[in-house]
Amino acid sequence: MDSVKIIEIKKSVFEDNNLDADSLRKELRLKGVFLLNLMSSPGSGKTTTLIRTINLLKDKLRIAVMEADIDSDVDAVKIKEATGIPSIQLHTGGMCHLDAEMTRQGLDNVDLEGLDLVILENVGNLVCPAEFDTGSSCNAMILSVPEGHDKPLKYPLMFSICDVVVVNKMDVQPYFDFDLEKCTEYVHMRNPKARIIPISAKTGEGVEEFAAWLLDAVKSWKNQ
Amino acid sequence: MDSVKIIEIKKSVFEDNNLDADSLRKELRLKGVFLLNLMSSPGSGKTTTLIRTINLLKDKLRIAVMEADIDSDVDAVKIKEATGIPSIQLHTGGMCHLDAEMTRQGLDNVDLEGLDLVILENVGNLVCPAEFDTGSSCNAMILSVPEGHDKPLKYPLMFSICDVVVVNKMDVQPYFDFDLEKCTEYVHMRNPKARIIPISAKTGEGVEEFAAWLLDAVKSWKNQ
Repeated sequence: MDSVKIIEIKKSVFEDNNLDADSLRKELRLKGVFLLNLMSSPGSGKTTTLIRTINLLKDKLRIAVMEADIDSDVDAVKIKEATGIPSIQLHTGGMCHLDAEMTRQGLDNVDLEGLDLVILENVGNLVCPAEFDTGSSCNAMILSVPEGHDKPLKYPLMFSICDVVVVNKMDVQPYFDFDLEKCTEYVHMRNPKARIIPISAKTGEGVEEFAAWLLDAVKSWKNQ
Repeated sequence: MDSVKIIEIKKSVFEDNNLDADSLRKELRLKGVFLLNLMSSPGSGKTTTLIRTINLLKDKLRIAVMEADIDSDVDAVKIKEATGIPSIQLHTGGMCHLDAEMTRQGLDNVDLEGLDLVILENVGNLVCPAEFDTGSSCNAMILSVPEGHDKPLKYPLMFSICDVVVVNKMDVQPYFDFDLEKCTEYVHMRNPKARIIPISAKTGEGVEEFAAWLLDAVKSWKNQ
């Protein structure tokens, strides 16, 4: 098994995270690096989705990944082994989210020279990561079919701050009471502009649409 | 649809939550009310599991439920409609967990007279609720098959503080790469004494075992 760099993230000292996030966003703009903040519940399939997406995009964009977890390095190792792109693990020391300063501590360990895209896989949690701007260029989230279509009602902030909601595990929809139409309606109650992309990271169905959206988001941002 | 009482929980002012939790535990001991703190990721099936469990136990124990969520009252209404027992909704105002004082604010709205058991359904989150003692007599959690058997590696604290880990959605195990043996091994790495109970809240399989465990836990506690 490949080994990956593990960074122990320290608690932030900045009092104003929003200011700090704006400042990080400006630094990344100057470097031409798009930062995608990917959030979800535990076990929604973030890592599997990323592996498929990166394999579709790695010839078009230069990508690196930062995997944030409270413990373990299984995700960063998986990404590195399955895609060959640079991947590091961030340990949050029990913290339930990343803020801008913690994200910066991770980025300090990534060689940004020549990169187009850094993907931050945030801690698996639908609550706290929504409250802290990481300095990302864009927020995306994954909701998986087994979690249920009522999640936008229960976790409103998360759904309101994401430009795209990937609905994963569509292959098991027949075994769950998951209504994609209702889900779409509830997401749009929180965020009328959110793009909804149903996929199965397991079979690959729909992942091309997400990859195309991400490629387009990075290119549009670069041309701004 | 039934309406339920919705309590807007305020942020705690107590600095030492552990002290406050111990004090709440003593108060509940004097009143003879067992408090179960039930935690899990979003969408793991806490409410469905509770409905089946309560329907098995409501002739043997006098039970009330407090449903904590950031928003919505769908869970408290479901519990009330499906079981007929008292059920209230706690709104955490964006907070990602409940501590002892917030739990007390909820309990102040429950008629504890003559009750044996109050079940607190904590906010769907595997991180923060593990860090705050609610004053409960016992912690339990639900891990669902679609979340994956590696979760004890990623969310160590949650698994280490729970006396019982209910593994839900066993009916869909054939469609997921979920290894119950590995899951058991990983849970026991965190907490060698944890009881693991595989169930399907959808079909009812295994719920009797969980109900029997809970009945026994309440009775043993009363006889202490």
